[in-house]
Amino acid sequence: MVLLEFSMSPLDKGVSLSPYVARSLDIIDKSGLPYQLTPMGTIVEGEWDEVMALVTACYQRMSQDCDRISTSMRIDYRAGKSGRLKSKIEAVEGRLGRSLSK
Amino acid sequence: MVLLEFSMSPLDKGVSLSPYVARSLDIIDKSGLPYQLTPMGTIVEGEWDEVMALVTACYQRMSQDCDRISTSMRIDYRAGKSGRLKSKIEAVEGRLGRSLSK
Amino acid sequence: MVLLEFSMSPLDKGVSLSPYVARSLDIIDKSGLPYQLTPMGTIVEGEWDEVMALVTACYQRMSQDCDRISTSMRIDYRAGKSGRLKSKIEAVEGRLGRSLSK
Amino acid sequence: MVLLEFSMSPLDKGVSLSPYVARSLDIIDKSGLPYQLTPMGTIVEGEWDEVMALVTACYQRMSQDCDRISTSMRIDYRAGKSGRLKSKIEAVEGRLGRSLSK
Repeated sequence: MVLLEFSMSPLDKGVSLSPYVARSLDIIDKSGLPYQLTPMGTIVEGEWDEVMALVTACYQRMSQDCDRISTSMRIDYRAGKSGRLKSKIEAVEGRLGRSLSK
Repeated sequence: MVLLEFSMSPLDKGVSLSPYVARSLDIIDKSGLPYQLTPMGTIVEGEWDEVMALVTACYQRMSQDCDRISTSMRIDYRAGKSGRLKSKIEAVEGRLGRSLSK
Repeated sequence: MVLLEFSMSPLDKGVSLSPYVARSLDIIDKSGLPYQLTPMGTIVEGEWDEVMALVTACYQRMSQDCDRISTSMRIDYRAGKSGRLKSKIEAVEGRLGRSLSK
Repeated sequence: MVLLEFSMSPLDKGVSLSPYVARSLDIIDKSGLPYQLTPMGTIVEGEWDEVMALVTACYQRMSQDCDRISTSMRIDYRAGKSGRLKSKIEAVEGRLGRSLSK
């Protein structure tokens, strides 16, 4: 299982990107994969092929009407681990012995 | 004001990184800057110089006992906007007309 | 066409990563897609599906014997443009009116 | 010593970014630090404080006339190693026993 964080934005649509981001989130939300929207991107958990198919679906939608698109992804694979949308944060809080802003 | 997301990990300490991440979070939590811990990094809001000083403090601590460190940062600057840890997510939810996983 | 830059590293194999990077470069070099190896990653040009298939092939090879893998990608899509491994640098040099370190 | 790769682009200036990238490259080229321009960013080698000061100088210039700026950075610190703009590529080529596209 992997955690994938990605951010995908048009460069040819000015500074207000939320209409384009909202279309991607609609696709992600309906995919059924566990995810978390953050102020800087979206984090999805799944098998490699599942999360890549999801990013590809968002790209296909965005490239229908955007001529330049910038995408960044970071992927954290750990063999045999799932549920890490929650467990990674809990591990850090457990180490510190206190709750953090999340 | 900028939103900065960063992730900083030692490459020479095996697969269990939470002890090192916890030390960074201790520095961030005590900085007084608004932040959000996510499963893939930490997002901080502040002036450019403030957030860079914070990342530098985390690096200085980690390089005391780690010989190889990988850091990634993404920074979103928007003139005259603050409070974006919340407002960026609200803008997307407002567009979609429904609440998302966050 | 897109330019994709990616970097894929095991986190459970210590600080000397070149054996693992070399295996990925072997796959990339044999793919036939135009690419450029840099000190921080590899840049490949192709259609979205081509470059994604290549990253997936590298991941499949690495996950055979690595239990934790960190990957980062940045993708620059521009409708109707190819040959950008060279043209993006030339555009910057043309603007400055002088040659740069590359 | 660190290798820093960064890419800094305005989001409010349309799709042709080379005028803005060229101004950053002018600053980098005159800094005296060893660097390499790639199709996806610029890689600089130096001490942490040196490379951060350089990115900050580029940001200060760009924010004079750009209202939204997206920046990504990746930093690879390895204790006691310099000259890695060349040595990292040579290590991969040495492993493979052949020359690669660079």
